[in-house]
Amino acid sequence: MTPTPLGPGVEFDLIRRLTAGIDDAPPGVELGPGDDAAVLDGGWVVSTDLVVEDVHFRRGWIPPEEIGGRAARAALSDLAAMAAEPVGVFLSLAGSSADHGDGTLEAVGRGARAAAAACGAALLGGDVTRSPGPLVLDVVALGRTRHPVRRSGARPGHEVWVTGELGAAAAAVGRFREGRPVSGPLLRRFARPAPRLAEARWLRSTGLLRALMDLSDGLAGDAGHLAAASGVALEIDGAALPVAPEAVEALGAEAAAHAALAGGEDYELLVVAEPGLDARVPDFARAFPGLRLTRVGRVVAGAGAALRSADGSLRPLEGAFDHFDAGSPAP
Amino acid sequence: MTPTPLGPGVEFDLIRRLTAGIDDAPPGVELGPGDDAAVLDGGWVVSTDLVVEDVHFRRGWIPPEEIGGRAARAALSDLAAMAAEPVGVFLSLAGSSADHGDGTLEAVGRGARAAAAACGAALLGGDVTRSPGPLVLDVVALGRTRHPVRRSGARPGHEVWVTGELGAAAAAVGRFREGRPVSGPLLRRFARPAPRLAEARWLRSTGLLRALMDLSDGLAGDAGHLAAASGVALEIDGAALPVAPEAVEALGAEAAAHAALAGGEDYELLVVAEPGLDARVPDFARAFPGLRLTRVGRVVAGAGAALRSADGSLRPLEGAFDHFDAGSPAP
Repeated sequence: MTPTPLGPGVEFDLIRRLTAGIDDAPPGVELGPGDDAAVLDGGWVVSTDLVVEDVHFRRGWIPPEEIGGRAARAALSDLAAMAAEPVGVFLSLAGSSADHGDGTLEAVGRGARAAAAACGAALLGGDVTRSPGPLVLDVVALGRTRHPVRRSGARPGHEVWVTGELGAAAAAVGRFREGRPVSGPLLRRFARPAPRLAEARWLRSTGLLRALMDLSDGLAGDAGHLAAASGVALEIDGAALPVAPEAVEALGAEAAAHAALAGGEDYELLVVAEPGLDARVPDFARAFPGLRLTRVGRVVAGAGAALRSADGSLRPLEGAFDHFDAGSPAP
Repeated sequence: MTPTPLGPGVEFDLIRRLTAGIDDAPPGVELGPGDDAAVLDGGWVVSTDLVVEDVHFRRGWIPPEEIGGRAARAALSDLAAMAAEPVGVFLSLAGSSADHGDGTLEAVGRGARAAAAACGAALLGGDVTRSPGPLVLDVVALGRTRHPVRRSGARPGHEVWVTGELGAAAAAVGRFREGRPVSGPLLRRFARPAPRLAEARWLRSTGLLRALMDLSDGLAGDAGHLAAASGVALEIDGAALPVAPEAVEALGAEAAAHAALAGGEDYELLVVAEPGLDARVPDFARAFPGLRLTRVGRVVAGAGAALRSADGSLRPLEGAFDHFDAGSPAP
């Protein structure tokens, strides 16, 4: 159970240090740290996701129900990343005395439960406590599959794809932080990300899927994680990226392209498949109307992730996304 | 999968509202919310425990390694409460930029990993993120057992027991809050609670164990939860309570007796057994030298928990413990 290798990043250096020296898998554990979730025998898939006010969201941006719903959706995205079926969530909540007293914490929990239920996940447990200030949520996502798809299966010759469109969540956060209005589809992309649960299982059903993860930290950083896990290099074609039109409208084309690459929290899938998936794109479109499936690059021998620009030049991709992007100024 | 009923308390009213209407168990889930942990088929046992600075601890009270270790030990106590064997933990950590930069967060994580490993639980995953200020830890405890012991098996005629001694953790917190020194055995009771993992399995092996939970919120409140889960009443004999000598030394006899009843975070076991366990106490003492096993009451028909005083009078017990007892003054 050596931890699945991770790509570059200060946060991941810490995780590397904390997981250093882990090598013996406990009995019954099939996959330990470093992938999107752990896998237990019986096909259980477990992940945990911590969400903190003024880091992942600000209180004024979305109402309490959506704060809870967004946290649940983000956590369930880790099950999509393993192509697992959702079973349940465990929900830990902390809020101030005011949040306990005025119904805020209850609304957060109600929103999380409802969003999980909409994805097929029941509330199985949790914890409720107090916080000196910030709202805190931890959502444990529990799923099941006999055939988890790991990050580690990419090999030279495979193709790299993404579901949906990228950059809208980062564009929404950018506008929120500037105090500008965020509404309509742009707001929905931030407030109600859609974990690609059915999409992941459909992709596995093609028989072509070889590696999978969800895009929580942005393609630039996440491609590096998948490359490290698989021991290969990923080459991303900048011109092919499916930039969200809401991001273009909010930021302009150039900044939107950057957000599609480096912005986080889109919760789309990063897909590595054998050649041949292009022939199945019409089937995907019929199965998931309105959702794109786009080839964005290829797997080659080497290490790390790189971006090929329109002029043919290649430069290393490094994750620059920091979840601290909802941060208030220091108190 | 109707939630296991809980005893009285504002925090538990919120949990009742959040779990209201849950009735269908998802396939593969054997026990849902309301007990110490959920149970999945294959014998997996899962619990989650959220720990927040200035609520469960203050930064100056114990060093970062012990902050992490204490959180892991508390989380693993939920596995003891099911008589499960520890397998792993998932560790979510949030800290300020300073905590990330100066090694504090890493020390917290290192302490949690080491404490979990000492109990037989490997680090299986987690999450690392930022916080606007308070340190936040969520520890998911994963265990396994073919024979989980629930809160719901108490019946009239059974006896109520507790492991160890009670009140020392609350006494330590009381002294910390007054700015008085806390050291030696009293400090250890707060900083390094011992999840009663082997003890729980030993008790099950007697064949007499009928219900079990761990004392995290204090006997007064927790007895009410066990009573509610089982649909019975628990009658606690005040004179029988094993008050920790460290609590008596720190608080005096009367306040220590109150702490043993109403103080939380001792992480001892509340045990319900068929009559006959008294004959096994010498065996328990040989198996766990220095650890007491004390009969503290009995199960009767009715509802709720009640305290029988030395004069024979009976009064309802209600949990008064509030985890907010490490709270700083409002900023």
